[in-house]
Amino acid sequence: MKIAIAQLNPTIGDLDGNAQKILAAASRAAQEGVRLLLTPELSLCGYPPRDLLLDPSFVSAMATKLLELARSIPDGLAVLVGTVEVNARSRQAGEKPLFNSVALLENGQIRHFHKRLLPTYDVFDEERYFEAGNQANHFILDLNSASVHIGVTICEDLWNDEEFWGKRTYDLNPLADLANAGVNFTVNLSASPFTVGKQHLRERLLQHGATRFDQPMMYVNQAGGNDDLIFDGRSIVCDRSGTLVARARGFEEDWLVVEYSLESQDFLPSSIVPDVETEAAELYSALVLGVRDYAYKCGFSKIVLGLSGGIDSSLIAAIAASAVGAENVLGILMPSPYSSDHSIDDAIALAQNLGIQTKTLPIGTLMECYDDTLDELFAGTSFGLAEENLQSRIRGTLLMAVSNKFGHLLVSTGNKSEVAVGYCTLYGDMNGGLAAIADVPKTKVYAICEWLNRQDNPPIPPNVLSKPPSAELRPGQKDQDSLPAYEVLDDILDRLIHQRCTIAQIVQAGHDAATVERVAKLVKIAEFKRKQSPPGLKVCDRAFGTGWRMPIASRWIAHLEAEQSPDPAKQSS
Amino acid sequence: MKIAIAQLNPTIGDLDGNAQKILAAASRAAQEGVRLLLTPELSLCGYPPRDLLLDPSFVSAMATKLLELARSIPDGLAVLVGTVEVNARSRQAGEKPLFNSVALLENGQIRHFHKRLLPTYDVFDEERYFEAGNQANHFILDLNSASVHIGVTICEDLWNDEEFWGKRTYDLNPLADLANAGVNFTVNLSASPFTVGKQHLRERLLQHGATRFDQPMMYVNQAGGNDDLIFDGRSIVCDRSGTLVARARGFEEDWLVVEYSLESQDFLPSSIVPDVETEAAELYSALVLGVRDYAYKCGFSKIVLGLSGGIDSSLIAAIAASAVGAENVLGILMPSPYSSDHSIDDAIALAQNLGIQTKTLPIGTLMECYDDTLDELFAGTSFGLAEENLQSRIRGTLLMAVSNKFGHLLVSTGNKSEVAVGYCTLYGDMNGGLAAIADVPKTKVYAICEWLNRQDNPPIPPNVLSKPPSAELRPGQKDQDSLPAYEVLDDILDRLIHQRCTIAQIVQAGHDAATVERVAKLVKIAEFKRKQSPPGLKVCDRAFGTGWRMPIASRWIAHLEAEQSPDPAKQSS
Repeated sequence: MKIAIAQLNPTIGDLDGNAQKILAAASRAAQEGVRLLLTPELSLCGYPPRDLLLDPSFVSAMATKLLELARSIPDGLAVLVGTVEVNARSRQAGEKPLFNSVALLENGQIRHFHKRLLPTYDVFDEERYFEAGNQANHFILDLNSASVHIGVTICEDLWNDEEFWGKRTYDLNPLADLANAGVNFTVNLSASPFTVGKQHLRERLLQHGATRFDQPMMYVNQAGGNDDLIFDGRSIVCDRSGTLVARARGFEEDWLVVEYSLESQDFLPSSIVPDVETEAAELYSALVLGVRDYAYKCGFSKIVLGLSGGIDSSLIAAIAASAVGAENVLGILMPSPYSSDHSIDDAIALAQNLGIQTKTLPIGTLMECYDDTLDELFAGTSFGLAEENLQSRIRGTLLMAVSNKFGHLLVSTGNKSEVAVGYCTLYGDMNGGLAAIADVPKTKVYAICEWLNRQDNPPIPPNVLSKPPSAELRPGQKDQDSLPAYEVLDDILDRLIHQRCTIAQIVQAGHDAATVERVAKLVKIAEFKRKQSPPGLKVCDRAFGTGWRMPIASRWIAHLEAEQSPDPAKQSS
Repeated sequence: MKIAIAQLNPTIGDLDGNAQKILAAASRAAQEGVRLLLTPELSLCGYPPRDLLLDPSFVSAMATKLLELARSIPDGLAVLVGTVEVNARSRQAGEKPLFNSVALLENGQIRHFHKRLLPTYDVFDEERYFEAGNQANHFILDLNSASVHIGVTICEDLWNDEEFWGKRTYDLNPLADLANAGVNFTVNLSASPFTVGKQHLRERLLQHGATRFDQPMMYVNQAGGNDDLIFDGRSIVCDRSGTLVARARGFEEDWLVVEYSLESQDFLPSSIVPDVETEAAELYSALVLGVRDYAYKCGFSKIVLGLSGGIDSSLIAAIAASAVGAENVLGILMPSPYSSDHSIDDAIALAQNLGIQTKTLPIGTLMECYDDTLDELFAGTSFGLAEENLQSRIRGTLLMAVSNKFGHLLVSTGNKSEVAVGYCTLYGDMNGGLAAIADVPKTKVYAICEWLNRQDNPPIPPNVLSKPPSAELRPGQKDQDSLPAYEVLDDILDRLIHQRCTIAQIVQAGHDAATVERVAKLVKIAEFKRKQSPPGLKVCDRAFGTGWRMPIASRWIAHLEAEQSPDPAKQSS
């Protein structure tokens, strides 16, 4: 029996377009003699649909579209489509209004299976919309002379194995229920956002499920970028022994057919696309996909960005060129009197390497004009943050003027280290429709650029990699005049943000106490800037963005002293 | 028996400061012979603490602080404090890590009661952090010669009465459980965000609970602004017959003592603060509190804003003056060559009426300077959106320069009608730390100003109220050149956003189909601007902000045709 995975890239809310993709996959499946076709979680509306789910007309349009789809599936083919189903018991039982559902479409009929584990953490808000399904999901697929018993799980349903994690996140494990039901194999329809290294985890998790419950497993993941989330595809199949027998391509749509042998009751080896080898390569692919899809799905075909000659804008330019084509990227150089000659040379060299267009708009006159306008009001004050920010805001304003005039998407260039400590200007260099590397720390920006330069046609001028980072907002300024060295800063930020360490723990790891406290304070103070940031592409487990929900007008900063004085033994009373 | 309500205004995360407030209330309670003191939900950390709850050091610091508090409560007094408790079963049972808890502090002991109904909709994310309590919460308070049996509920626990609402939102009603347990009366500790008219609903709800379950009720609400949310206080007490016997002040901290008669087993009549009489007055009080607390809790004592002579900035100036004092408000006039004389005159008259300072920074030279800088790049194009936005961004940049230089909080001036349809400039007039009227439609801006002008010393110059609204970004421009009349627009927006009507329903209500579709499209397209908006003070049930979670790169706009063509009878299959 042939089973196909359609690793689709839906656009959120584009019910017509997404249904067409599903239908095209169904036609291909029928042609190739496939019996069962899998599509990703919520493939009909795209994941995550967010508050579109609160619009009754959206939900009813999905139901209508699903019915149309069901009528159009070729005979002899069964298709699993990700969709929602209205919870008819909602009002009388006090339950949520919808189910996150997989619909089995076959012979013009629709049968729904409901997601059982609803992630409500980080970027996920599923308990905002969905009621959890309360039974094991499985069905019998009739073949001519036999039948196959198939378990259905949806994304998170796979992620609560207490043996694997050493803890439970939910009270039940749907895989265990399916094993008890005696299924032949289990499929998982996912929309699992990319983070660095997550594919390795997924493959181990799938293999663990296969061996623990003695059942072959198929995993289909969405591909494509949706706002801040990147879905990396890489759908996989493993056999009963936990051996990987198929892997689809990463970071693009793909099509995968595997054979389930009724004789051996297992999947036969199929095509395994090699996975990316380095973290830098993985990050680059993810960022390119994220930028491309944000641009295209918002209706942009061209990108504009500010080119400072620094490493951040150099990387963004390379990503943009990979995403929409070098001929569709415009780099704007905006030198000030404080800009060094090498900044301009480096930016021009980068643009030539990439083959992107540039324009130069010097900002010296505008700086003087603002100074004149503010002269009387600012009399007696000295050059400082206000003047530094002015330069950044002049540039941000010029970039938006270009964006507005020619319809380019402005991509902002701030990295995660800067965004974390607020070393960036709101309404200045933070301007843009998308913050492409807002989840990439400065040290990883270097690592990606170094990896890029090891490929054919190295794009980043060597001087960009070797010169000390500078915002060039005053003469001779260096980032390290006001920030710790980036190796130090990034390690502190990693412990503070990702590992959720206390300040005492970070100090214990060898960092200077005053530096750690200062960084913690900067992170807290910059909250108001991040609140107004464009969407930033998420590539790690704790990104600033939809999954980062911090108060602004607050007063909590973990102080070193506070960590040490109380007796921890008393804290559970 | 005397029971006191401390209607507190905590600062999020300020454990020391909040504990001091609770302790001060406890001292006063002891002095006044009070037996039981109530404080709001999560009074120790302030509501909503959001992702601070994911920081283990924050949670443990709260536990430590609670223990300190418990040891400091005067003898003979019991205090209910809002806090969190760690869920020890979390990892093995697959439950959430915390409980939203009320701690009963008495005789140095701590006893926790867990919130049972966890709102996870609109601005609420409680299932992100909390496990629901699974038992009825009640305790016996010993008096010298008697005892009283008291039920404890936390905010949402009160809001699931199927008789009152005609539907259930959760599967159980904690009040029913408490009635079965035979409590003498029930208290509710809340942090209930303000929306227009909500107090009336709260009072009806409390009275319904009292009469249905034959038990007196006490309701304590948080006061104060926390980012986008305003908590309006107005704590209330009603007796067994459902009669209101006490009401605390609105929009500020307050202290309320009521007597519970052991003889009549009921609350005796106490002080009832009259409620505000009009929607405009209610809105004005809420906005003043929201602006004041955002400023003070962020460490600002002064406010700057752009004064255009229009009605929005006039209202914001009045609110700012009420919030932090006229002497701490600076209005910046930034006339362009397109500004009319009356704009400047009106702005000056307003400032004089309010007693706020002004500075004038003409932007004509900066406009020319940008034009010169962009001259070559923009050659052959005609004046349009890019140039209009430039004016707004020059003003936004000047305002931020003043904010950065002198440490004023910039308050942005966009109203909900503009923010809804994107009639505002990102990085321009949207600039600011807080969007004070982003949830107030233009027609209500007029209503509030008209109400203001009926008070003593009317601040708004009559011409501001009577002239047609204009952004003055090109000669002779009027808002109504590009938007429907605000009465029409606001009605369409209300139906679309708040009532969640379909386009067909809005047309059926008498609106022009093409206009409704255009407005729906504008609302959708402006999503990217709202994503980068400052926090906007929420005053209605469906505000843009933390409770509005829409995708940006999406393709769903409800079209009139889409509403009509499919057969609705088939949608539930």
